[in-house]
Amino acid sequence: MRDVAVIGVGETAFGELWDRSFRDLGIEAGLRAIQDAKVTADEIDALYVGNMSAGKFVDQEHVSALVADYSGLADQHLPTVRVEGGGACGAIALLQARLAIASGMHDIVVVGGAEKMTDVGDVQAAQILAGTADQEWETVFGATFAGLYAMMARRHMYEFGTTREQLAAVAVKNHRNGALNPNAQFQREITLETVLQAPWVAEPLGLFDCAPLSDGAVALVLCGMDRARKYTDRPVRIAGSGQASDFVALHDRRDLTTMDATVIAGKRAMQEASFEPKDIQVAEVHDNFTITEILAIEDLRFVPKGKGGPATEEGFTALNGKITVNPSGGLKARGQPVGATGVAQAVEIVRQLRGEAGKRQVTGAERGLTHTLGGTGATAVVHLFERGD
Amino acid sequence: MRDVAVIGVGETAFGELWDRSFRDLGIEAGLRAIQDAKVTADEIDALYVGNMSAGKFVDQEHVSALVADYSGLADQHLPTVRVEGGGACGAIALLQARLAIASGMHDIVVVGGAEKMTDVGDVQAAQILAGTADQEWETVFGATFAGLYAMMARRHMYEFGTTREQLAAVAVKNHRNGALNPNAQFQREITLETVLQAPWVAEPLGLFDCAPLSDGAVALVLCGMDRARKYTDRPVRIAGSGQASDFVALHDRRDLTTMDATVIAGKRAMQEASFEPKDIQVAEVHDNFTITEILAIEDLRFVPKGKGGPATEEGFTALNGKITVNPSGGLKARGQPVGATGVAQAVEIVRQLRGEAGKRQVTGAERGLTHTLGGTGATAVVHLFERGD
Repeated sequence: MRDVAVIGVGETAFGELWDRSFRDLGIEAGLRAIQDAKVTADEIDALYVGNMSAGKFVDQEHVSALVADYSGLADQHLPTVRVEGGGACGAIALLQARLAIASGMHDIVVVGGAEKMTDVGDVQAAQILAGTADQEWETVFGATFAGLYAMMARRHMYEFGTTREQLAAVAVKNHRNGALNPNAQFQREITLETVLQAPWVAEPLGLFDCAPLSDGAVALVLCGMDRARKYTDRPVRIAGSGQASDFVALHDRRDLTTMDATVIAGKRAMQEASFEPKDIQVAEVHDNFTITEILAIEDLRFVPKGKGGPATEEGFTALNGKITVNPSGGLKARGQPVGATGVAQAVEIVRQLRGEAGKRQVTGAERGLTHTLGGTGATAVVHLFERGD
Repeated sequence: MRDVAVIGVGETAFGELWDRSFRDLGIEAGLRAIQDAKVTADEIDALYVGNMSAGKFVDQEHVSALVADYSGLADQHLPTVRVEGGGACGAIALLQARLAIASGMHDIVVVGGAEKMTDVGDVQAAQILAGTADQEWETVFGATFAGLYAMMARRHMYEFGTTREQLAAVAVKNHRNGALNPNAQFQREITLETVLQAPWVAEPLGLFDCAPLSDGAVALVLCGMDRARKYTDRPVRIAGSGQASDFVALHDRRDLTTMDATVIAGKRAMQEASFEPKDIQVAEVHDNFTITEILAIEDLRFVPKGKGGPATEEGFTALNGKITVNPSGGLKARGQPVGATGVAQAVEIVRQLRGEAGKRQVTGAERGLTHTLGGTGATAVVHLFERGD
């Protein structure tokens, strides 16, 4: 396949952005990425947007054409594509944009990810999020996302002796990183006690085990590697991509404590890139709940199965630890505008590989990974990046 | 780009299918297409699904993983992608699936299109459909789809002298074709008087100028042309694809009576395929309203601008006319499960090019076209097909 590089990145701050609309956020991120890539409007061949539920959050479908329109690109009559796959929307959009360039159809493609989640109430937002689980077997009976992930956490504690303190260590680490990220929703460190003393959302997951509701948008500019040097001397190459699906409902899964979709997506990406987990210095993984990051680092083979809790507690995944996980603060502290997540992770990895991550810079970052989940793991997407200079 | 062929098609009946769920329909269409293509489950590399608003119609997002799961493919851990672009979802899904094969990432891909629209009330359905127009400038003020298209119809009448009878002739023709299609929602001919005497929905569009709310699903199996003969001796080649976007809100458009997105998508597809409009014997075009088909045949250059009305009245687009338009019955009579439309059009064209269209077979069909719109024309997609045997 034709090699593809990221040549520009842009993001908005993440948070409760009540004074700005979905379209405002999409435009801001897109224009920043275009400016960063130094491409002109007439060089852009297509626009891909990852978005989960704008239909329910802001009553607007057809958002890819809308973002192109409001970005001043309507006169270019670009093909625009919205991709949805639960929380993995952004990561899938990135993969589709990569294929569009790899196919030879396009040369330069903008990939956006956006969600506006705080214009509805918390209960309604939880219902919308739960729409990516199995409606007929889970959601209709009142299962929430926190409830479903709590079952995975409980089983992981039972099988591997994972402790509440180890779950909490994920939140403490990611808040510590978020405090170094000026675009993060939460830029404040928290203590282990804060996490442990917070009220339950769904036992054993407390308030600080859960990523917030967020508004925000991010964008990337992709380009065929053969043309990337025209725009930048720091292209970041997409070295491999893997995507996999699984049963949607938890009760059908082989094992509650392993996400087969993550295992397989990771292997597919590693195989394409000819990487091993030990080759990665920095990773952004899905941490919508603290248990999710523990599952991810195990299923991606950064640590042995069952050892995610102790490894986190011991600082294996801390900033400039053995492998840095979620230097941006992750979904937990950076924020979780759902459709943006997969693209936001890529933005952070690109900044890390370019050496632009400021106080949260991982020393010697040459290769990075992103891992994004849809639903409770019925979709997983892994992308691998390396410095192309 | 690597050549891609359709090697299998499958569909459900379209209609008000209250006894069957979204997932039932998706599975039925998918399994039929797989059976038609004679591929086995382990040969399928990926699944693409066109769907507009399952989140609002049936409270289920993440529908691509769901369809894979319920089709018995969860153990294959396929990558699955849901694509949304208003009414053009299915056509965009087909284009993305084509690119996935053209890129070399995949060899065999299933493309599904599905919508379940009749589980909500008519008013709610109208609101959901209007979600693909501009929410902040149109929908929030009460604009419905019928109202927006009525403005285009009124302007077309003013500029070109198009008559109510000419609009009605589209409905009469498409019902005549639908009566020959055992899977159509309406299999009954109607008279000009029936259309003219029906109550207004939005003047000058009456009840019979509007496509119905429908449930239904369709699927295609795509394969690299280099491998297609392993499965079929009647592959249908995708000769060209074009997609374009435009301003979302009508008030921003250059001209209410020309859809620039259709004009440009058509040219892009024709250029890739090296076809001219006169090379096409059979076309399925977007006819959510009668005016839409008239705009489409003009903007695709089958007839001169402004002549769509008289041409329809004179039988230019009738079954085995100069060019047959909407032999399936179109959205008007075959039915309009929104996310399915673009794929359903391709299913019909494949059946026509294979000579399998029964009583509605177009004599000597060698090359066909599909044209699908999102919103009120902010997205348009054109695909061109030719017999590959």
